[in-house]
Amino acid sequence: MRAGELAAEFPVVSLDTPALEAAKLLADQNLPGLVVVDERNRPVTILAGTQVLRMIVPVYYQDDPALARVIDEASADHFTTELEGRTVREVLPDEWRDLPVVEPVATVLELAAVMVRSHCPLAAVADTDGTLTGVVTLDGLLDRMLAR
Amino acid sequence: MRAGELAAEFPVVSLDTPALEAAKLLADQNLPGLVVVDERNRPVTILAGTQVLRMIVPVYYQDDPALARVIDEASADHFTTELEGRTVREVLPDEWRDLPVVEPVATVLELAAVMVRSHCPLAAVADTDGTLTGVVTLDGLLDRMLAR
Repeated sequence: MRAGELAAEFPVVSLDTPALEAAKLLADQNLPGLVVVDERNRPVTILAGTQVLRMIVPVYYQDDPALARVIDEASADHFTTELEGRTVREVLPDEWRDLPVVEPVATVLELAAVMVRSHCPLAAVADTDGTLTGVVTLDGLLDRMLAR
Repeated sequence: MRAGELAAEFPVVSLDTPALEAAKLLADQNLPGLVVVDERNRPVTILAGTQVLRMIVPVYYQDDPALARVIDEASADHFTTELEGRTVREVLPDEWRDLPVVEPVATVLELAAVMVRSHCPLAAVADTDGTLTGVVTLDGLLDRMLAR
């Protein structure tokens, strides 16, 4: 089994997608992460769920959970206002890691190694020209690896 | 809304659970990760899905995906043999990170900050004596944060 066969359709967002819409897509469909593509359907970045969450949580709370502890629920609306009116491009993390993208001929083991290295529970499968052909999730991959 | 109210039941494993059984639990129930508890039901560690995957993938492939690329499918059985006969204790990652564990009074924002910091899409909620009372998943948390 190769990545090309394991890859399935998966919702994508673009750099111009409203950030709030992207976060809602993740939450509503219980996705393990998001694939951001450019106008030619090439993966630009792939975000693990925790990276999407990071876009919502103000930086000063990330650095100091003790501060987050004292925020009362009346401030809950601040979460979404962090995203409001902004696009995915505007809230992307500064830090760009190794993208979990493989070619369709990648083996199951290569997929696994790529997910482990990127700490990302999904990997994009892209053609040699970079076009996204599908996504393999960690769950889908484990199902395959553990099948006997 | 506090962590204690958001927390839901979640399957747990112990340090003595066979590693293969733990990996299958994650795959079969599409869990975002695993909570490992001790004999008194206190969280010992919490593993993101990619950390469970890491337990399966031989280290030399993790370090060199190009090596993984040349492995043919006939070697697929090597995955599970990495785990066979071993317990969770024996395959736990050496590196212990900040555990995403919060008290029941933790706010939604604190939960989010803890998940972001630990890069883990689930957080355990434990009483002051350390006993696990439930788990909040990233999806469950996002649903709450994005609700209007």
